Amino acid sequence: MRLLNPVDQIFLRLERRNQPMHVGGLQLFSLPEGAGSEYVREVVDAARGFTDVQPPFNRRLKYRFGQPFWVDDDSFDLEYHVRHLALPQPGAIRDLLALVSMLHGALLDRSRPMWETYVIEGVTGNRFAIYTKFHHSIMDGVSAMRVLRKSLNEQATPGSLCVPWNLPREDNKPSSRPTPWRSAVKALGATGRQVAAMPRVGQEILRAWQDSRESPDFTSISQAPGSMLNRRISGSRRFAAQSYSLNRIKRLAKHYEATVNDIVLAMCASALRDYLIEQDALPDAPLVAMLPVSLHTADSDAGNNIAMIFASLATDVADPIERLATIQRSVDHWKRRYKAMTSEQILGFTAALGTPMGMNLLTGIAPKHQSFNVVISNVPGPSETLYYGDATLEGMYPVSIVLDGQALNISMVSYRDSLEFGLIACRRSVPSMQHMLQFLSDALDDLEPTDLAHTGRDGVAADGG
Amino acid sequence: MRLLNPVDQIFLRLERRNQPMHVGGLQLFSLPEGAGSEYVREVVDAARGFTDVQPPFNRRLKYRFGQPFWVDDDSFDLEYHVRHLALPQPGAIRDLLALVSMLHGALLDRSRPMWETYVIEGVTGNRFAIYTKFHHSIMDGVSAMRVLRKSLNEQATPGSLCVPWNLPREDNKPSSRPTPWRSAVKALGATGRQVAAMPRVGQEILRAWQDSRESPDFTSISQAPGSMLNRRISGSRRFAAQSYSLNRIKRLAKHYEATVNDIVLAMCASALRDYLIEQDALPDAPLVAMLPVSLHTADSDAGNNIAMIFASLATDVADPIERLATIQRSVDHWKRRYKAMTSEQILGFTAALGTPMGMNLLTGIAPKHQSFNVVISNVPGPSETLYYGDATLEGMYPVSIVLDGQALNISMVSYRDSLEFGLIACRRSVPSMQHMLQFLSDALDDLEPTDLAHTGRDGVAADGG
Repeated sequence: MRLLNPVDQIFLRLERRNQPMHVGGLQLFSLPEGAGSEYVREVVDAARGFTDVQPPFNRRLKYRFGQPFWVDDDSFDLEYHVRHLALPQPGAIRDLLALVSMLHGALLDRSRPMWETYVIEGVTGNRFAIYTKFHHSIMDGVSAMRVLRKSLNEQATPGSLCVPWNLPREDNKPSSRPTPWRSAVKALGATGRQVAAMPRVGQEILRAWQDSRESPDFTSISQAPGSMLNRRISGSRRFAAQSYSLNRIKRLAKHYEATVNDIVLAMCASALRDYLIEQDALPDAPLVAMLPVSLHTADSDAGNNIAMIFASLATDVADPIERLATIQRSVDHWKRRYKAMTSEQILGFTAALGTPMGMNLLTGIAPKHQSFNVVISNVPGPSETLYYGDATLEGMYPVSIVLDGQALNISMVSYRDSLEFGLIACRRSVPSMQHMLQFLSDALDDLEPTDLAHTGRDGVAADGG
Repeated sequence: MRLLNPVDQIFLRLERRNQPMHVGGLQLFSLPEGAGSEYVREVVDAARGFTDVQPPFNRRLKYRFGQPFWVDDDSFDLEYHVRHLALPQPGAIRDLLALVSMLHGALLDRSRPMWETYVIEGVTGNRFAIYTKFHHSIMDGVSAMRVLRKSLNEQATPGSLCVPWNLPREDNKPSSRPTPWRSAVKALGATGRQVAAMPRVGQEILRAWQDSRESPDFTSISQAPGSMLNRRISGSRRFAAQSYSLNRIKRLAKHYEATVNDIVLAMCASALRDYLIEQDALPDAPLVAMLPVSLHTADSDAGNNIAMIFASLATDVADPIERLATIQRSVDHWKRRYKAMTSEQILGFTAALGTPMGMNLLTGIAPKHQSFNVVISNVPGPSETLYYGDATLEGMYPVSIVLDGQALNISMVSYRDSLEFGLIACRRSVPSMQHMLQFLSDALDDLEPTDLAHTGRDGVAADGG
């Protein structure tokens, strides 16, 4: 019996029926040659055979004196957590995405360990899929992708399956999660450093305020316009996913002297602009994206060193190349600013800037203040081909969270020579969101200079009807 | 924009994430001869073609000044409400029931009209299924079964489909639902009669209290023991369904000079006794079943004239025939009592007896008071064969509601020469509930006298893994 740490408690408190707080991942596999019609059922049976369930996968919530604790589930039911589903024939990708949309909209049962995995057979092209969801209070999106990755092999090995809930203990690292005591000690240490960092944070906030009025390249949270992406959300979701060539994006980055991330932002900006024009809802002011970035400075502490960059998406600029340049300048401005600060200063600074957003999520106190319009998150993934037993992983797509006021999330993960986009949206506030997949493709075409070889589009996935 | 009537509001208020307040129905169809692989997809497409959506299917909730109103959904999305799913091959009935268990556990989206229908292809034996769920605030279980029945034909007619949301207006009767004004007027009238009925109600309550101490055949709400069926529920469900021969039940009724309902109660009693023995959890005192019964007296008012019978299930009696006799006496006692009362008196009486239960549901004030242990509900259905287009309806099973303190519900509907049982339970508090299907069969065998021809068991459905 262990009290939940405060951050994990927040994810429980934020959860409402229209706002489930779980993250997910969709993995697409091709069946090995000669696989019989029972192959996927055998995968399910094998997965259900791993009855030695490791923390945190065996832990459920229990409230005592109004406080949430983790306790071991004494009637753990692996058949409940591991489901076997199928697509209607011929198993179009749009049917797969529709199914994931549906599954991702349903709340996890709080009486049980809060994760579920769905093995889905009958995907066209001799494939199957696994969609897994984890409550954010047991695992964040990055850890979820890591755990899913760890259950795969680097060689095709018939019959050699791993499952996330049965990984060696060092791989799912429950013990590295702070216990209340350790986290209290750690917090004291961190607090000390944070207090020391305060003068600098204060300076930066003041400078940010001045910059927001003077520097054209600086995007502060005060600049985000209202938009249709920033409304209350319903409980229904639309998931869309597609793979884009990482090599092509890298070539474009080189050509424009930009980073891969700049190109990705330009793709998203272009797709959002096209989508909002289609919906007749493009704000005059440019959209602001919030990018969570990992800090890897010399003095960085272990743990949650995530800073936020608020990048202008320059959606008011019609020319794609000029738009890319504006985005680059906006991101560079933040990078220069962060370079001059320590981790503690950065964390304090982003916490101060992010506070209105966090407060809004928790309390709804300032619903008219729009900190940013959309979260865009890019997590590096494996570059080598991975296997589940002898089934080849063809693609893996993050399925993230949307919130009241943040009705669209664009997440991506790299795998082999692809960048795998997973877009999740409130199905009601962001209608026909799946059109953005095509707009993302178009964005790459628009950036393609005539002197670069055009390798054509690639994409495993269509819309998520 | 129309305020919800108070009864419908109660179903919204009762709903929690572990306690969804929707009712459902599962229909099983056989494909017509020569149907191609696209048949079910065509059924889905045809259903999605009925875009003229009638009330209440086009109405969603909207809160104003803290009050819930019905408003027309101005971004109605038929693709959202009508889903196309499939079973993993070979499409075992246990996979179908597992899928329905999962779907029935998920909350409806309150931002949309609160109903969903799932067309499920790939059921073994050349069949498909349709599972439909309605929020109880738009439709009760009986109306749900009626609406599902109305969308079927009495002749196999290729291409001639109806859908519940596009029935002629008189069939779904939204206009007969009381508007606030009409219901206020009606309430005044009914209240007057209820006040007049009070002395008699008081007498009956007093007599019930005396009977509960003196008469061995009278089962009052004060007698229900605590049991494992009466715990807090989780958000996960187990659905089990099976058809039993109505002719066989009728023969047994005739043999024992009992009603069909008595035999059904004896089946349930026997199955519950076997199940609780298996779980090592049989209470010493007999379980009490609550049976909602329709009142059809001469002075009955239109509307919700549902009375409650609290029948002893005699689960403390080992002999099945003696158990049946005890159940019969318990039910007869209530029938005699109700015969001497007017509808208003019965309603007042059952309201008074049911109040602790209702209060517990709404407030949890007296959690230790167990009004009854299980709801058993039997609704007469069509006796002729029905068709959806040219697909034959092979079975239809009710999927009801479980509540905190009422973790199992047994509902049944008759169709042709079958009685179709649908059992829904909290998957956590009532483990391996699907074993009850076999125990129900065994119960029929146990009642079978040696001189009656034994026609053997029949059942389309197995357990709901």
